[in-house]
Amino acid sequence: MLSARALAAFRTALGENRVFDDAATRTLYASDETPRQVMPDAVLFPNSHDDVLALARVACAHTVALTPRGAGSGNVGGALPAPGSVVVSFECMRRVIEFNPDDRLVVVETGMVTEDIDRLAREAGLFYPPDPGSGPYSRIGGNLAMNAAGPRAVKYGVTRDYVLGLRAVTGAGEAIRTGCRTTKGVTGFDLTRLLVGSEGTLALITEATLKLLPAPETVATLRLCFASARDALDAVIRIMRQPVAPSALEFMDARAIDAIRPTGAADDLASGTRALLVVEADGAAEDVPRQIAALQAALQGPGLLEMKSGFAREAIAQLWAARKSLSHAVKRIAPLKINEDVVVPVSQLADFVDFIDATAETHRLPIVSFGHAGNGNLHVNLMVHPDDAGEMARAHAALDALMAKVLALGGTLSGEHGIGTEKRRFLPREIDPPTLALMRTIKQQFDPQGLLNPGKLFPDTDA
Amino acid sequence: MLSARALAAFRTALGENRVFDDAATRTLYASDETPRQVMPDAVLFPNSHDDVLALARVACAHTVALTPRGAGSGNVGGALPAPGSVVVSFECMRRVIEFNPDDRLVVVETGMVTEDIDRLAREAGLFYPPDPGSGPYSRIGGNLAMNAAGPRAVKYGVTRDYVLGLRAVTGAGEAIRTGCRTTKGVTGFDLTRLLVGSEGTLALITEATLKLLPAPETVATLRLCFASARDALDAVIRIMRQPVAPSALEFMDARAIDAIRPTGAADDLASGTRALLVVEADGAAEDVPRQIAALQAALQGPGLLEMKSGFAREAIAQLWAARKSLSHAVKRIAPLKINEDVVVPVSQLADFVDFIDATAETHRLPIVSFGHAGNGNLHVNLMVHPDDAGEMARAHAALDALMAKVLALGGTLSGEHGIGTEKRRFLPREIDPPTLALMRTIKQQFDPQGLLNPGKLFPDTDA
Repeated sequence: MLSARALAAFRTALGENRVFDDAATRTLYASDETPRQVMPDAVLFPNSHDDVLALARVACAHTVALTPRGAGSGNVGGALPAPGSVVVSFECMRRVIEFNPDDRLVVVETGMVTEDIDRLAREAGLFYPPDPGSGPYSRIGGNLAMNAAGPRAVKYGVTRDYVLGLRAVTGAGEAIRTGCRTTKGVTGFDLTRLLVGSEGTLALITEATLKLLPAPETVATLRLCFASARDALDAVIRIMRQPVAPSALEFMDARAIDAIRPTGAADDLASGTRALLVVEADGAAEDVPRQIAALQAALQGPGLLEMKSGFAREAIAQLWAARKSLSHAVKRIAPLKINEDVVVPVSQLADFVDFIDATAETHRLPIVSFGHAGNGNLHVNLMVHPDDAGEMARAHAALDALMAKVLALGGTLSGEHGIGTEKRRFLPREIDPPTLALMRTIKQQFDPQGLLNPGKLFPDTDA
Repeated sequence: MLSARALAAFRTALGENRVFDDAATRTLYASDETPRQVMPDAVLFPNSHDDVLALARVACAHTVALTPRGAGSGNVGGALPAPGSVVVSFECMRRVIEFNPDDRLVVVETGMVTEDIDRLAREAGLFYPPDPGSGPYSRIGGNLAMNAAGPRAVKYGVTRDYVLGLRAVTGAGEAIRTGCRTTKGVTGFDLTRLLVGSEGTLALITEATLKLLPAPETVATLRLCFASARDALDAVIRIMRQPVAPSALEFMDARAIDAIRPTGAADDLASGTRALLVVEADGAAEDVPRQIAALQAALQGPGLLEMKSGFAREAIAQLWAARKSLSHAVKRIAPLKINEDVVVPVSQLADFVDFIDATAETHRLPIVSFGHAGNGNLHVNLMVHPDDAGEMARAHAALDALMAKVLALGGTLSGEHGIGTEKRRFLPREIDPPTLALMRTIKQQFDPQGLLNPGKLFPDTDA
């Protein structure tokens, strides 16, 4: 319970109009994209790095837990308030501090919307490669916390690969600067990448120096219908073995295709289609046709029923339609989507999809799988009715089996969503005790009172 | 001084033939590429991860400092024995544990020679992009310790970008595993990248899972003579603003060109050449001519005296000859090379080279500069006679001024060599006190007795 003195201290530090403890505001910030809701004690809206430093010092002095929050668009409860905590919303911190096309970098406050960074970069012929699905509204701070990615990761990498340096405030109320402004640098420990993916448990990231790349001139798309998931995923291996890096390599399984049938988005798929790939190439207008030809050659193989290509904007949109209609379509299957974000080595994808099918059957659950096949990153969605206790129990058993299989195949629990509240019980299965113990002691150095995002990432923490 | 009991314990743990304390062996392992020499008390040659775990436990029990060592090819004293320490040489640990072309990865012991990894990868049409100059003999463990890079970094990134996961032994004698086997993963803190670049101060890295890429089909080279460094470095900015990423973008200043004149390697440069660029493109045979044309277009500008291109192996070698002859040629100028490895933003390179020229004049020293211009990474070599006290004093004053300028321009102290013993006094100029304090506390978590590579990276440590 937030004390009146702590509340007053936050108001003194930030100003009256940046501290809200009314029920309406607290309700607005009580949830993220997970189905749970936890009311915070208050919501803070810092307007600058100095504001964040000031509020962290108040939190330290009054022992107040803080839940940092970008857009609340995360899938794993990373921004779900810890009970008794105060939400720190970064949404007012969206200034561009420096945009430097010659050095191919931008320095932004971490409340900036991800796609706004890309939009700014493109004004100078550059682009910001990471493209999470939430990019139109997610804040870059959330992307940094979770090391977000998206379809382009197969060619361009993830958020981590585009962070040169950070400015942040630790849980001890200390301002730190990590990294540099250049694409190379090995000066002290890499605290930049330690903070990326740490889910707000080590520090509140206030500013980020991001690397930009020259924007590709054009893009073209292929859509491929396969007779089976294994045929499609064998084609994925062939794609990843040849030199043309696709700028997207997306997979949909049979249940995903069935899910979009009612929307009409599957009407133009070849008859007998049980798996879909969408493959994209980008680059110079003069070169993209060569890339597409090379990708087409690699994609040829058993079970390929149909291959369509698009070079014009409308044709590309048409080819993506099935994939883009999916998120909305799956909601019709059941009210709750348990959205896993696992990764297995590309060579193991087909075995894993077989296992998902068997698990769906054993546990009598619709499981819809799709995702970034070139990285081995599948979004596995268990569709459930939360009021059906039997179904929920089966879903938990299925989840358990899926996680065990992911790890047995040499995979990892999360590719781009993070651990949050939702997967922390699984963490000890992947990370051995001495390694996890080191993570805990590192946490203590940054946040000795355990004030930053308690109850996230680590199993069995105190919140 | 190593106790007889500790020595016996190492012999029991590793076997008689893996522990040497004779003067000849100790002398062989007393130095790296810096001019200093410090005799270790013994040299250990572990043969496996388990051996490293065993020796670390002996070191903990007997409080013996360890100096990890790959090939000893570092430039900053990273492998220079701390006084009273025992060298841990990884040169026997060079096994390939797994080579998996379908998942584009290789798992190796960290004593493997860097270029051997690339050679293995190419057998399956893949390659290992980082290409430090020492690649023919450096060990991957040293590359990991220093986050090594090379000319290809401008297109492909540095060692850090190719490490998926690590196996290591901490200074507390605990075996840990970090990261994963897939190109995406956000599961707990990124200890992998915390270890990369930590210069052996956190853990002894025993095995690395490395990412490979499909090998480019072909390569072509441009060599450009410019009337001034500023003209050449303006061209570098133009290259980095357009979409074709060169696979190398190397710069040599006027003093570097003068240095190679006696070797004949400058004979075919255009008259009046005061700066040289070597630019490379790689990719599909069908596409490289387009890339070269785009690069040529971007390179056109004031002060361009001559541009030569090569597509055949001999022509390429001829164009690289000036750059490749440099390392040997500079040794004729003076017996000692103080080799700095600074980085400034690409937009600041020309100002920085002007400052180097002025510094050389003020302090009456030959300073030869060349390096990876596309990353803003310059190797600045102060050529001195170590017996000339006045010259050495001027060199130290010049170094001091150069480091101050690098930081004033938004740069960083090291791009790919690391800090080691040689630059640690400069570290507090770049890293602020709270950030450096955090690095020290992280060090304590991994290595509570301070046994791992003491006297490196941190300023004013106890060795």
